[in-house]
Amino acid sequence: MRLHEAGALLAAECARYAAMGWMRGTSGNLSVVLSRDPLRLAVTASGLDKGEMTASDVAEIDASGAPVRPNQPTPSAEAGLHGRIASVSGAGAVVHVHALAPVLAAERWPNAVHLRNLEMLKGFGRKADDWVSIPVVQNSQDMTVLGDAFESGYRADTPALIVARHGLYVWGSDLYQARHRTECLEWLLRFIIET
Amino acid sequence: MRLHEAGALLAAECARYAAMGWMRGTSGNLSVVLSRDPLRLAVTASGLDKGEMTASDVAEIDASGAPVRPNQPTPSAEAGLHGRIASVSGAGAVVHVHALAPVLAAERWPNAVHLRNLEMLKGFGRKADDWVSIPVVQNSQDMTVLGDAFESGYRADTPALIVARHGLYVWGSDLYQARHRTECLEWLLRFIIET
Amino acid sequence: MRLHEAGALLAAECARYAAMGWMRGTSGNLSVVLSRDPLRLAVTASGLDKGEMTASDVAEIDASGAPVRPNQPTPSAEAGLHGRIASVSGAGAVVHVHALAPVLAAERWPNAVHLRNLEMLKGFGRKADDWVSIPVVQNSQDMTVLGDAFESGYRADTPALIVARHGLYVWGSDLYQARHRTECLEWLLRFIIET
Amino acid sequence: MRLHEAGALLAAECARYAAMGWMRGTSGNLSVVLSRDPLRLAVTASGLDKGEMTASDVAEIDASGAPVRPNQPTPSAEAGLHGRIASVSGAGAVVHVHALAPVLAAERWPNAVHLRNLEMLKGFGRKADDWVSIPVVQNSQDMTVLGDAFESGYRADTPALIVARHGLYVWGSDLYQARHRTECLEWLLRFIIET
Repeated sequence: MRLHEAGALLAAECARYAAMGWMRGTSGNLSVVLSRDPLRLAVTASGLDKGEMTASDVAEIDASGAPVRPNQPTPSAEAGLHGRIASVSGAGAVVHVHALAPVLAAERWPNAVHLRNLEMLKGFGRKADDWVSIPVVQNSQDMTVLGDAFESGYRADTPALIVARHGLYVWGSDLYQARHRTECLEWLLRFIIET
Repeated sequence: MRLHEAGALLAAECARYAAMGWMRGTSGNLSVVLSRDPLRLAVTASGLDKGEMTASDVAEIDASGAPVRPNQPTPSAEAGLHGRIASVSGAGAVVHVHALAPVLAAERWPNAVHLRNLEMLKGFGRKADDWVSIPVVQNSQDMTVLGDAFESGYRADTPALIVARHGLYVWGSDLYQARHRTECLEWLLRFIIET
Repeated sequence: MRLHEAGALLAAECARYAAMGWMRGTSGNLSVVLSRDPLRLAVTASGLDKGEMTASDVAEIDASGAPVRPNQPTPSAEAGLHGRIASVSGAGAVVHVHALAPVLAAERWPNAVHLRNLEMLKGFGRKADDWVSIPVVQNSQDMTVLGDAFESGYRADTPALIVARHGLYVWGSDLYQARHRTECLEWLLRFIIET
Repeated sequence: MRLHEAGALLAAECARYAAMGWMRGTSGNLSVVLSRDPLRLAVTASGLDKGEMTASDVAEIDASGAPVRPNQPTPSAEAGLHGRIASVSGAGAVVHVHALAPVLAAERWPNAVHLRNLEMLKGFGRKADDWVSIPVVQNSQDMTVLGDAFESGYRADTPALIVARHGLYVWGSDLYQARHRTECLEWLLRFIIET
């Protein structure tokens, strides 16, 4: 995929999430893998309203989150974690949103949120009767610290991470799968909070 | 009704429910009866985003949920229950959505959810002072098991079924009536949860 | 105002309330006064989806709710209460919606809901520090019973009525004022429920 | 900025907030600074539906909230507080919305709402681990009383004020920054209420 095409897709997805209230202010960021070897991602630019993005509001980064082109928008401060997740998991797209339910769930279950016997788990890529634990890590401003915490709890069958007092990361083979997993997990987290 | 016309109606209804947050991810499915003898239904295709359906994203199935045409999209995994409901109830349309309120209600009342003395019951096809019990059945991945559970609790005057930890089925003479019953029942279930 | 103009206004207002989730199914109904002497109202037709109304989906009624023209749509079953409210209060428009908050409030405070020291009371036509009591009456299918209950609790400075286990009536000089009062009162009722 | 340009921006922002349910009825008001010396603001007109504003629905006021042009719409009754906030803080735009969460938070914490260790604080212009206290003042119909209460609790690093039983004020360098701070603070207040 070319950077500008990725930018158009990212802008459209951002507008969806913003309309759902999951990217309030300029919060949240999305990325999509441009190439694997070496790993290159397109990530949303920092500091912009996610409901008003255009295809140009995107930066190309490497696996560490560092920008690889001159004269491009500043990548999101969390670009390093996007790179790390794509690198470790092999995902093609990473969604980071500030929905409320994941952060509320992490307050109640500060190590991991357990989900079981729920049909919606299928939309997250699991079976309805699987035991699923969504890892929760402490928030940090240091993407290496967050990335290490992510990697130490990483399981290939669980494509999500909650950062306490911060937000939710979900990934998938492409933005479309990542979107569906995000929507289903957010539903599951609302369910578990309210029961 | 022809299959392509049914597909257009189903796509429009899916877009409505998706916008309400009741078909998150690729969850939920809708069907409409094409003919009665033999019973044929148009059912939404499996695995698609319900906010982005087109008139072609539909499969024709028989009463057992089996596809009856070659080269069509894979019907929803729950097509068998749609067929069963249409067959037993005589309904012309079946709505299956993953609204949160029915699943929360089923956690609290695992056998049936009782509703009474509520004006909104009229929008569900009953009188305001009727005693109404919405049956709750356990979730299963086997549509025959689900169908048997549905049929054993079936009453002709109660056009809905909650599948615990899963979602809601509602039916009516057509998609329009099924929609109104779904909306009213979801309101009633939110009311009963919050009081 | 002519009936067709009233129908266009009512359809537009219905679409607004339906989008807010306050007219689920075919619930709720709106009216606007066409003339005062004798009293004639345009009221929304019975049984239609309030998000899909047109200017023709309206009936002309008298103060008792009886239709006054041949070959028009059936007026809402609650037309009689609209006529009574317009007659007693002198209002130019009556809004009846099935928002959840008023019905939840009536469960908790079955005679009247008391509001005080809230800025939003100004949007309801009162002062911020007024004592305001929204009357609650029992639900009935008989519009004369409902109308008598309304009238016995009527105060000229309180343009609203909650019908328990049913919904909310609000009125004003025109649909625009009635809308603003409805929106402010719904906010106030959510506030009072959650505190 | 010219008054008519300010009016167009204010109308667009009002439509956004109205769609979010934060300007129900005719509640809330926005302002933007037109010039600094002397201080002149464009403020939304009183009594209008915030979802239906045009570029003309705006009045030019001075630092005290008094209109400075003949034949313009009546400025919002709270124009005086807008002027005071812009004067004291140096902000270029002030947002006043009637979201529910701030008013609920003020009921629980009647002097100040404390927020800490939350990533969303960055969207409010602070660091994630800052101690942040949002001042709460009592409601009043006298803008001088409200303005004095605002000024006595004013801190340059905390661009927000909750008026108890009323609503929220947030400011920033322009309407765009004020919007993002408002959205992030509303999220934070929902979080703190629900935990």
